[in-house]
Amino acid sequence: MKIDIVTLFPEMFHGPFGHSIIKRAADKNIIDIFFTNPRDFTYDKHHQVDDAPFGGGAGMVLKPEPFFRSVANIKNAIPPKFTSRVLLMCPGGQTFSQEKARQLSQYDSLIFICGHYEGFDNRITEKLADEIISIGDYVLTGGELACMVIVDAVSRMLPGVLGSKESASTDSFYNGLLEHPQYTRPREYKKMPVPDILFSGDHSKIALWRKSKALEETFSKRPDLLADYPLTKDEIALLEKMKK
Amino acid sequence: MKIDIVTLFPEMFHGPFGHSIIKRAADKNIIDIFFTNPRDFTYDKHHQVDDAPFGGGAGMVLKPEPFFRSVANIKNAIPPKFTSRVLLMCPGGQTFSQEKARQLSQYDSLIFICGHYEGFDNRITEKLADEIISIGDYVLTGGELACMVIVDAVSRMLPGVLGSKESASTDSFYNGLLEHPQYTRPREYKKMPVPDILFSGDHSKIALWRKSKALEETFSKRPDLLADYPLTKDEIALLEKMKK
Repeated sequence: MKIDIVTLFPEMFHGPFGHSIIKRAADKNIIDIFFTNPRDFTYDKHHQVDDAPFGGGAGMVLKPEPFFRSVANIKNAIPPKFTSRVLLMCPGGQTFSQEKARQLSQYDSLIFICGHYEGFDNRITEKLADEIISIGDYVLTGGELACMVIVDAVSRMLPGVLGSKESASTDSFYNGLLEHPQYTRPREYKKMPVPDILFSGDHSKIALWRKSKALEETFSKRPDLLADYPLTKDEIALLEKMKK
Repeated sequence: MKIDIVTLFPEMFHGPFGHSIIKRAADKNIIDIFFTNPRDFTYDKHHQVDDAPFGGGAGMVLKPEPFFRSVANIKNAIPPKFTSRVLLMCPGGQTFSQEKARQLSQYDSLIFICGHYEGFDNRITEKLADEIISIGDYVLTGGELACMVIVDAVSRMLPGVLGSKESASTDSFYNGLLEHPQYTRPREYKKMPVPDILFSGDHSKIALWRKSKALEETFSKRPDLLADYPLTKDEIALLEKMKK
């Protein structure tokens, strides 16, 4: 997958992308990440990327030309067979989810547009982007952190990125339930013991306990997730027990 | 505000925290950020921070001791008068929001616990953290990106961080509505003109147009937000018009 990031602050990505899963995906040549600075696509002396809003008001607005030119230049370098998607990070967009990560992982090329300051000229939002995405209902200084979050979540879904031992399939949300609690050594720490059942050696009992804990976690913290989760008969019986 | 981050990967933060609003808040001494590596609180030869899960299964689990010791050490350095909160980043937690950012901005000290690998020993989650927070319904490789997102959103709420020209008060979500569209030069680009009304010079007309656009944006993209938004009579009339 080719990932292009249009940003005025490419240096922001060095730390996060130099570590963890994103670095591993890049090292394995599963993803290729490129940065484009819209400032390089300004032709005036001051390399101006923003300007005052028409109609008055505080703040600055990102100008259309540097962003349209950046994306045109990126698209020129994408092989014609590649499926591609231009994503713009904005709190007003569609809320990002694990399902969205799965969808995006199917493309050959993703182009991210990150903004700063007051916002984008509306022609960028409406005509240049295929999708407007928000990572949640909160305001960030820029789109860079949102972009990092999406690249991380999408990278994990690409075949070969995660090792067999850490398959994405046991993660929260992948199966529609929150994860069951995990414990490791020491068996007792500061008078907090690990549940005895984990030492029973009875694997089917442990599996049942974990499943019931995952249901319990989800039921108490995020009951909304259960609406989309196809419960088996046994799971319904477990949930009924909990409600009592 | 004192911000402490417990992470195995402090280098990940250098890019994002060296730029944008977080750097500005730090430069102005409005926030002070410190990192604690739980690996420094392991006393065995191999500085082991994780171990296999009790009861079997794939992946590794973060051990309790290095994290309990890290937080105890941080708390020792916090002035007794400070109000403080220990936050753990986990997809199963309470969903972060602009309102949560506002609440967290009231504390004198925030302690973030970031995990990696399969997950935390449940004693960390249950006994060490005051709150479990998730930035959205998707799985990330670690808590670091989630922590950066929260620090950014919270920093923006602290008095003196944003300049007067970019006050947080016009941002999406702050007022419960999405932002109205913004335009800047050129007046026409690639046959896409800026709406004429912005050149009318009539400020009250422009203000009304912007308000109606903000309502329209919110109504078409995020109608759920309107449920919490106290509409005035004029706004209700505008919305009724749109529905037709």
